Amino acid sequence: MPQKATAEAKSNIAFIKYWGNRDAQYRVPLNNSISMNLDHAFTTTTVEFDARLNTDMIRVGDLPANDATRTRVITHLDRVRALAKIETRARVASSNNFPTGTGMASSASAFAALSLATTRAAGLNLDERALSILARQGSGSASRSIPDGFVEWMAGTESGNSYAVSLLPHDFWDLRDVIAIVSTTEKKVGSSDGHGLAQTSHFIDERVRALPLRLQRVRRALFAKNLAMLGPAIEEDAVELHLIAMTSNPPIFYWSPAMVRVIETMRRARADGLAVYFTLDAGPNVHLICEAKDADQVAARAREIADVQNVIVNAPGTGARLIAEHLF
Amino acid sequence: MPQKATAEAKSNIAFIKYWGNRDAQYRVPLNNSISMNLDHAFTTTTVEFDARLNTDMIRVGDLPANDATRTRVITHLDRVRALAKIETRARVASSNNFPTGTGMASSASAFAALSLATTRAAGLNLDERALSILARQGSGSASRSIPDGFVEWMAGTESGNSYAVSLLPHDFWDLRDVIAIVSTTEKKVGSSDGHGLAQTSHFIDERVRALPLRLQRVRRALFAKNLAMLGPAIEEDAVELHLIAMTSNPPIFYWSPAMVRVIETMRRARADGLAVYFTLDAGPNVHLICEAKDADQVAARAREIADVQNVIVNAPGTGARLIAEHLF
Repeated sequence: MPQKATAEAKSNIAFIKYWGNRDAQYRVPLNNSISMNLDHAFTTTTVEFDARLNTDMIRVGDLPANDATRTRVITHLDRVRALAKIETRARVASSNNFPTGTGMASSASAFAALSLATTRAAGLNLDERALSILARQGSGSASRSIPDGFVEWMAGTESGNSYAVSLLPHDFWDLRDVIAIVSTTEKKVGSSDGHGLAQTSHFIDERVRALPLRLQRVRRALFAKNLAMLGPAIEEDAVELHLIAMTSNPPIFYWSPAMVRVIETMRRARADGLAVYFTLDAGPNVHLICEAKDADQVAARAREIADVQNVIVNAPGTGARLIAEHLF
Repeated sequence: MPQKATAEAKSNIAFIKYWGNRDAQYRVPLNNSISMNLDHAFTTTTVEFDARLNTDMIRVGDLPANDATRTRVITHLDRVRALAKIETRARVASSNNFPTGTGMASSASAFAALSLATTRAAGLNLDERALSILARQGSGSASRSIPDGFVEWMAGTESGNSYAVSLLPHDFWDLRDVIAIVSTTEKKVGSSDGHGLAQTSHFIDERVRALPLRLQRVRRALFAKNLAMLGPAIEEDAVELHLIAMTSNPPIFYWSPAMVRVIETMRRARADGLAVYFTLDAGPNVHLICEAKDADQVAARAREIADVQNVIVNAPGTGARLIAEHLF
């Protein structure tokens, strides 16, 4: 039985957003969401169970994890220990290939990689569905970083039936997510808090009611590789996430001057014939979705914007995968 | 019978917004709205009926009106001619005390002043209700520039019962609207077009459903002179106008980087203890609502923001009033 394993998982960008929970404790969401894994934004995590340890040792990058992260990771390790019926403590080392503090969400890739590495190190061999359910409990969007390529997280009704599946493999459509990094500051309101407030917006019921149609537009657009169909749907959904946040009580304002400037610039570029569409997460960066052939031009336009500090170009990424297992 | 009259009417800032029509032709709105007249933003209009004219002569400021304005003003003159049973053409001279191209809405004050001046010049003596109904047909929000001070426009169900009344006189509460002028460019989408698109937003029904409670909060806050009650309600409504616009089909983006920067700055100032709340119209400027005692500080903070080109401080204004009548 292995006691040490290393896994890698990609971050993902949602085309239809996860926002708000049916069950906050287990992170069972209000609605299905659809995303694309990002090949250039990933977390690599090694987990080693060691009977000599009295406590879990958690490192993120070169540093011991802060208290909030430590608590959240240990809770996740406990989920796996319960499944594996072990009590051994573990050494966890996690690193992102993208710089911290860029406002890029890392919890999706982090909890996906952690779930795979921990279960394998504990001697478990979960199938994709069980891994997605496990990852989801650590971070909702991590459920979508388990399967390959273009992914739909089926909301389900309870923990056991809320998991993500691959809609289409990563090499099906050569899309790009050109991320315009506009801020290095931490989010003022974490997305977990945002999810908790979603149901205080008086528009949330209408959002959930209307989503099945938009989900179907996105699925059809992906299957047809039709960016002109995909783009408006993802922009609508991104705006809607922000408006649910801004109409929550208290309101959460994720928008920033720089974000608005990037969106304005790209809407003008589109009016001039460049096929690019934006999406936004609960953070300051703008994700610019285009086809591979236009990615250089989109990236170049983004770099010209004064507030843009960096640009990261992502192709569709694979699902979480095991890098190494070690037997002792 | 007078043939020439001069009237003045104030612009107004809506605390609860007019957005979307039940009847677009007659500008019967979807919902009640509440506003404050602005004493430092007004239109002065002189109308002279002259039997020697073959055509209406319309001047705005120092220039002949452009075609769109000319058509809209002549249509309004025709409404008055029908009421007065005359066919005489008129000379109209209208000027705003605020510079054009500041993104400040002038149609409210313009059609309120035009309605009063034209009816008096035509020998009519309409009561406030009839004037408000008339002004509303020229520009919806003009209905609110007829009564004094703090005003509610009762949506009604048809043209004859859709008009504004004064809730409280202008000297009831020493509020200020500190307008941060952030752009001199014309609106990309006029508010008339925005009203037409409102019902394409799948959130409009929920907005209209939820508004009575917010209207009541605003009325109560005004009667109690309670800014801490008023402020959150007007911010909610301003955000909601923009989100209805952004979720219309096609979406309308009125936001700008500068607008977001002003809002961010003022939210921080509020967190630091300054009692200031924002509202937005279908344009780029930000209206900062505070009490008179804080207006200097709010204006000073606004002027420090790089994108703010000018600041105009307004106290509550009177209703439309006659400046002069001339008998020949």
